[in-house]
Amino acid sequence: MYENLKKQLFELKSNRIFEFAVIAVIIISALEIGAKTYELPGIANNLLLGLDWFITVFFVVEISIRFIADHDKKNFFKNGWNVFDTLVVVVSLIPINDSELALLARLVRIFRVLRMISIIPELRTLITSLLKALPQMGYVVLLMFIIFYIYAAVGSYLFADINPFLWDNIATSMLTLFRVMTFEDWTDIQYETMEVYPWSWLFYMTFIFLTAFAFLNMVIGIVVNVMDKESQAEAEELRQQLEEEQGPEPTMRELQDEIRELKLLLQAQRQNTE
Amino acid sequence: MYENLKKQLFELKSNRIFEFAVIAVIIISALEIGAKTYELPGIANNLLLGLDWFITVFFVVEISIRFIADHDKKNFFKNGWNVFDTLVVVVSLIPINDSELALLARLVRIFRVLRMISIIPELRTLITSLLKALPQMGYVVLLMFIIFYIYAAVGSYLFADINPFLWDNIATSMLTLFRVMTFEDWTDIQYETMEVYPWSWLFYMTFIFLTAFAFLNMVIGIVVNVMDKESQAEAEELRQQLEEEQGPEPTMRELQDEIRELKLLLQAQRQNTE
Amino acid sequence: MYENLKKQLFELKSNRIFEFAVIAVIIISALEIGAKTYELPGIANNLLLGLDWFITVFFVVEISIRFIADHDKKNFFKNGWNVFDTLVVVVSLIPINDSELALLARLVRIFRVLRMISIIPELRTLITSLLKALPQMGYVVLLMFIIFYIYAAVGSYLFADINPFLWDNIATSMLTLFRVMTFEDWTDIQYETMEVYPWSWLFYMTFIFLTAFAFLNMVIGIVVNVMDKESQAEAEELRQQLEEEQGPEPTMRELQDEIRELKLLLQAQRQNTE
Amino acid sequence: MYENLKKQLFELKSNRIFEFAVIAVIIISALEIGAKTYELPGIANNLLLGLDWFITVFFVVEISIRFIADHDKKNFFKNGWNVFDTLVVVVSLIPINDSELALLARLVRIFRVLRMISIIPELRTLITSLLKALPQMGYVVLLMFIIFYIYAAVGSYLFADINPFLWDNIATSMLTLFRVMTFEDWTDIQYETMEVYPWSWLFYMTFIFLTAFAFLNMVIGIVVNVMDKESQAEAEELRQQLEEEQGPEPTMRELQDEIRELKLLLQAQRQNTE
Repeated sequence: MYENLKKQLFELKSNRIFEFAVIAVIIISALEIGAKTYELPGIANNLLLGLDWFITVFFVVEISIRFIADHDKKNFFKNGWNVFDTLVVVVSLIPINDSELALLARLVRIFRVLRMISIIPELRTLITSLLKALPQMGYVVLLMFIIFYIYAAVGSYLFADINPFLWDNIATSMLTLFRVMTFEDWTDIQYETMEVYPWSWLFYMTFIFLTAFAFLNMVIGIVVNVMDKESQAEAEELRQQLEEEQGPEPTMRELQDEIRELKLLLQAQRQNTE
Repeated sequence: MYENLKKQLFELKSNRIFEFAVIAVIIISALEIGAKTYELPGIANNLLLGLDWFITVFFVVEISIRFIADHDKKNFFKNGWNVFDTLVVVVSLIPINDSELALLARLVRIFRVLRMISIIPELRTLITSLLKALPQMGYVVLLMFIIFYIYAAVGSYLFADINPFLWDNIATSMLTLFRVMTFEDWTDIQYETMEVYPWSWLFYMTFIFLTAFAFLNMVIGIVVNVMDKESQAEAEELRQQLEEEQGPEPTMRELQDEIRELKLLLQAQRQNTE
Repeated sequence: MYENLKKQLFELKSNRIFEFAVIAVIIISALEIGAKTYELPGIANNLLLGLDWFITVFFVVEISIRFIADHDKKNFFKNGWNVFDTLVVVVSLIPINDSELALLARLVRIFRVLRMISIIPELRTLITSLLKALPQMGYVVLLMFIIFYIYAAVGSYLFADINPFLWDNIATSMLTLFRVMTFEDWTDIQYETMEVYPWSWLFYMTFIFLTAFAFLNMVIGIVVNVMDKESQAEAEELRQQLEEEQGPEPTMRELQDEIRELKLLLQAQRQNTE
Repeated sequence: MYENLKKQLFELKSNRIFEFAVIAVIIISALEIGAKTYELPGIANNLLLGLDWFITVFFVVEISIRFIADHDKKNFFKNGWNVFDTLVVVVSLIPINDSELALLARLVRIFRVLRMISIIPELRTLITSLLKALPQMGYVVLLMFIIFYIYAAVGSYLFADINPFLWDNIATSMLTLFRVMTFEDWTDIQYETMEVYPWSWLFYMTFIFLTAFAFLNMVIGIVVNVMDKESQAEAEELRQQLEEEQGPEPTMRELQDEIRELKLLLQAQRQNTE
């Protein structure tokens, strides 16, 4: 009987209507989250509360169907997306009566919108490829962090008395430097310190050039890397396609070998004739 | 007689002078639109009114000529550019006496400048290729929207009481986040919320990195895609050009086959001799 | 005797020391221009005046040497860089006693610094390649101008009464839009108009997306174009180098033809034998 | 005995644990530098002082080990990274009792963090490749400097009386222009000068376009250059790999030569037969 249920649920899960229903409920839950940011009359609030319960129940049912219908239950939670989906659903199940935690409960519900990513395969691929791109830039990010750290230390040592709000300690200094990197009112900061240290423009100038340069290098590195992989994959694909069509293409060497065999044949024939 | 007229109009339409006249009138209509933004003496205003009528009549005549001269009238309105041209002309024909709608009438006339795009083939190609590039980034745009939506919901839940002007509801929050993404006075917003939530810099930092990263990914995706197509088109072109010049280039395989035939010939000859 | 002078001057012109002297004088003239922006004591001012005369005389002599030493005087002024050099020198020769024109005279002397570009071949090549890149983006620039013009017209019609300083007429509106494109305090402008037209954020949003998109397209277009030319030039170079080394490389077709000749030979031989 | 010590130290130096210990101490020294930017109780300050002595001694010992264990002592200081490491260590050895120089001593200690770059090979490679990229853009940087210098001179001549803080002399003008290039409150500067010179927007507009264009050109130049080298290196690698596998691949020419030999053989045979 369980096997029967499992089979039926698997068919349900594979149904396109089921998929669309899930996407629809995710969109509704997103709209509900947005609606709650507006001030609403009491009735609407009650409606939203009911909707929230419906969404929670729907997601619990959905995730249960996926789990039961899965053939390989041991590996169900080895898939990161399944873990993510389950976590989002389970956390929003925790009953919160305490008004202090109400805000937290609201925040947790926002993550339901992220299920949009786990349900649409194209977005999932996108995220996976974004995550794959991260390690490539590991060392450039480390380099940038070192640049930030050194400049923040220098800035804090020199400018802490000028403007404690911006340069009090290394943490606020790093925040200030990030502000400088985004060019956000950076000259106000510069003019302030230049009154005490007239040469401090060198501090900002070198920092901007170093970070811009490192950032540029990172972007170029990624572009080159992506295009490299792309062209390799393409060449590989072309080669395989040709091979499938015609069997392996003979190389120059194989041609040379066959011509040499011909030569030997002829030479043998000649000796024969003589 | 109609056929005669159609033929004459077709010749007129294909004339370069006609084309230049249309472009000239579009430029005049653009200048007229610009002139109206200045405060002008009464006489000039009357002149502009006359000019406006002339332009309207000219465009009606021009579009009529194009329609009559067209061989395939059924498909005339299947061409998006023709629909666009006709709409712009028809809308500016609607008489508006009501002073309240005068502003609308003025706005509609501005779209005449867009006819510049439909009349210059290079601009038309540019727009078409821009539109073609849109679907490629469909999913990255969706991803960015999800990021915006989630951060806007979080921002609205947490910061609505700190500054209702910026974070009142999810719509204003998204506008504020767009401002943060353009780095426009974003630290003012950050310092304000950091007074209540000292860790809120994490909110801005992660948002900036996520959007910058997604944006970068989108740009790289487009560049790689465009260059891919470019190089494929080039390789195809080269191949076709070679084939036209010399007939199909023999492949390694064909050479191998011919060498093998030679071998068979020689072997046959040898048996003959023996 | 003139021929003798011409020959001597040509040798002088081709001398590396002469070239370095010219670059040195250009640098000195640049430093003089910079020095004049500081408040200087009377003596230093007199010194600068003397220096200015020396530089003027030096440049007149130098350009004369170049002209006399040139073999092909008819085409001397067909070279844009020569025209530029002569103009800069001639204009700074005009005596200006009028104190009102003193500022103009100062400004003209600044262009002497540009001679640095005409004297260093690498900078000349750079400028030439920049100028060559311009026509490629002609149509994207035209498209951007049309976008600017339409948005400026709309902005001027709608917002002129809200803030005449920013939106008074189409010219100031275009300046304001350029400011919006550089993200410079653009939200101040937006918030101001949103008080009257709550939906005006759409105006700024679409404008930013359209211009960013057109700009991106332009950059990608240039990158693809440059890399295309680069790879073509490279392939061409490789081909030529190979040909120089070994004479023209035989094509597959030529190999095929030779193999076919072999076959004919063998077949002829066979008939012979039989 | 010295040889024995040298050998033991070499083994120590090559030990992974030694390397991790050095990295750990560098991280500790970085944390210490960061900690000093906070206001700390007296005990913590004493602890940090002790830690500082430990780090200094550790670095002296470490650099001594590296020097003694080195086989080729003459060239030890020809390696830039060794010179850098030694300098950082030696400078932090100088005893500073003078309270005025205390700030300098603190600043010098910050450079210890840079040892992170010299100790991690990947970061060293990154820095080396960054430095290699510099000369490529030498001339674009020179061009940009000329543009800056000319605009700064013009700005200083024209606007010095309007706002001496921004345009007093050529140095402050260049700083102001850098601010304009980063789009930081540049319209405030523009509106100020437009009150006196209404056409001064042309000054800013042309400056922004020229620098943006030169910058874009530089970026594209680097991208193209990097990808060029990449593809060359790749092609070279592929060729070498093939050669290693199979010995040199025969060229079309070699095949042609072999076919021609065949022909000669056949023709010789024919004459033989006749």
